[in-house]
Amino acid sequence: MALKLYERVGKQDNHRPSPFSWRTRLALAHKGLTPDEYVPVKFTDKEIIAFSGQGFVPVLVDGDKVVSDSWAIALYLEEAYPERPSLFGAGQGPALTAFFKSWGDTALNAAVFPLVIADLHANIDPADQDYFRQTREKRLGRTIESFAAERPKFLAALDKVLAPLRAHLAGSRFVCGEAPAYADYIAFSAFQWARCSSAQPIVPADDPLHGWLEVMSDLHGGMARSLLRLETGQAPS
Amino acid sequence: MALKLYERVGKQDNHRPSPFSWRTRLALAHKGLTPDEYVPVKFTDKEIIAFSGQGFVPVLVDGDKVVSDSWAIALYLEEAYPERPSLFGAGQGPALTAFFKSWGDTALNAAVFPLVIADLHANIDPADQDYFRQTREKRLGRTIESFAAERPKFLAALDKVLAPLRAHLAGSRFVCGEAPAYADYIAFSAFQWARCSSAQPIVPADDPLHGWLEVMSDLHGGMARSLLRLETGQAPS
Repeated sequence: MALKLYERVGKQDNHRPSPFSWRTRLALAHKGLTPDEYVPVKFTDKEIIAFSGQGFVPVLVDGDKVVSDSWAIALYLEEAYPERPSLFGAGQGPALTAFFKSWGDTALNAAVFPLVIADLHANIDPADQDYFRQTREKRLGRTIESFAAERPKFLAALDKVLAPLRAHLAGSRFVCGEAPAYADYIAFSAFQWARCSSAQPIVPADDPLHGWLEVMSDLHGGMARSLLRLETGQAPS
Repeated sequence: MALKLYERVGKQDNHRPSPFSWRTRLALAHKGLTPDEYVPVKFTDKEIIAFSGQGFVPVLVDGDKVVSDSWAIALYLEEAYPERPSLFGAGQGPALTAFFKSWGDTALNAAVFPLVIADLHANIDPADQDYFRQTREKRLGRTIESFAAERPKFLAALDKVLAPLRAHLAGSRFVCGEAPAYADYIAFSAFQWARCSSAQPIVPADDPLHGWLEVMSDLHGGMARSLLRLETGQAPS
């Protein structure tokens, strides 16, 4: 039974600038599942994933099962592979991870977005740049450049949003406790998205989060370090 | 073995304006534990709790055991009463609840604080008002009144902070899933603190959170409805 992951690709084939695709990549690795194929999908490659009935990545194909949306994929993997390492744990785990996902979507990713949008635009395929600009500028009501120029304000906002993550990781090895699980992937994918999109750091060099970020980058054979190619600037090691 | 809870009291004896005391009150009820005594402690009643080796409530006395800090108390209750309903659940539950606690402290409570501080000052014992003003104004670097006057800004900030809670509760009966547990008490205690401190609402009348707030208020014999006496204005029913 073939396992395929359709995920966002940037300017180069080994460049994966999407938080949601990263959540799924790491969730599959957590379950010990290796896709037979990773299918790179540009923003404008809507026809490649039209079979999923919608236009966004990630899309997982597992035999005859098609699942889109990273959260739906995580729920599917947990149900379909219950004997493999759990993404959520038992009891309150799934519900509290669902809260964490809402925090990741509405607070963390929302705070990272303005810090990466301009460089992300520069690091996606030229065929995608018009689409990206049009959809984002419509949402923002202004140009990407004028928006991104308020970087000091957005860095301060991210700093505030990160307070609970910093406080928690000061007393816990991983978000999920002694071992990483899906909530770690949710949080980490925001930082991975940032460094796949922009060479500009979004947290200070002495940020206490770096210890956890390094450990997360090492997981699953250093998966997160292998797909960082950026044309503009130097990607973090 | 006597069980005693030392908790913050306001102007009147049945007035309990502290988010941390509420977390502990509800955690005890969750465990089916009824204190033999609730000891009201004013801000300036430091000598009453000096035996705990520190100056803040809540403090729990359980026989010869003394525990201060609401989180330490929750951890203690879970360990001391493992056969009673769990506050955190198994597996990832404790770690994800610890993240939720960090979010409750640094994001939620921090966003509620500026919306209640002026009315809270008016609703504490006159003996506490000077202490409260001095400590808070030192921290704020300005008067309580000039700070609280920026209410529209703070309401907008709280609205943003609540986004993950709203998104989560749109798809989950409680924060912790099908039944309430400690993360629900953490979130609820911020709202309970607000309505024990101020008659001014902190969320709109049509906020989707009200359904959950009502259910939370009904728990444990309507415990949260029984201690809302405010001198200024009408407390919500």
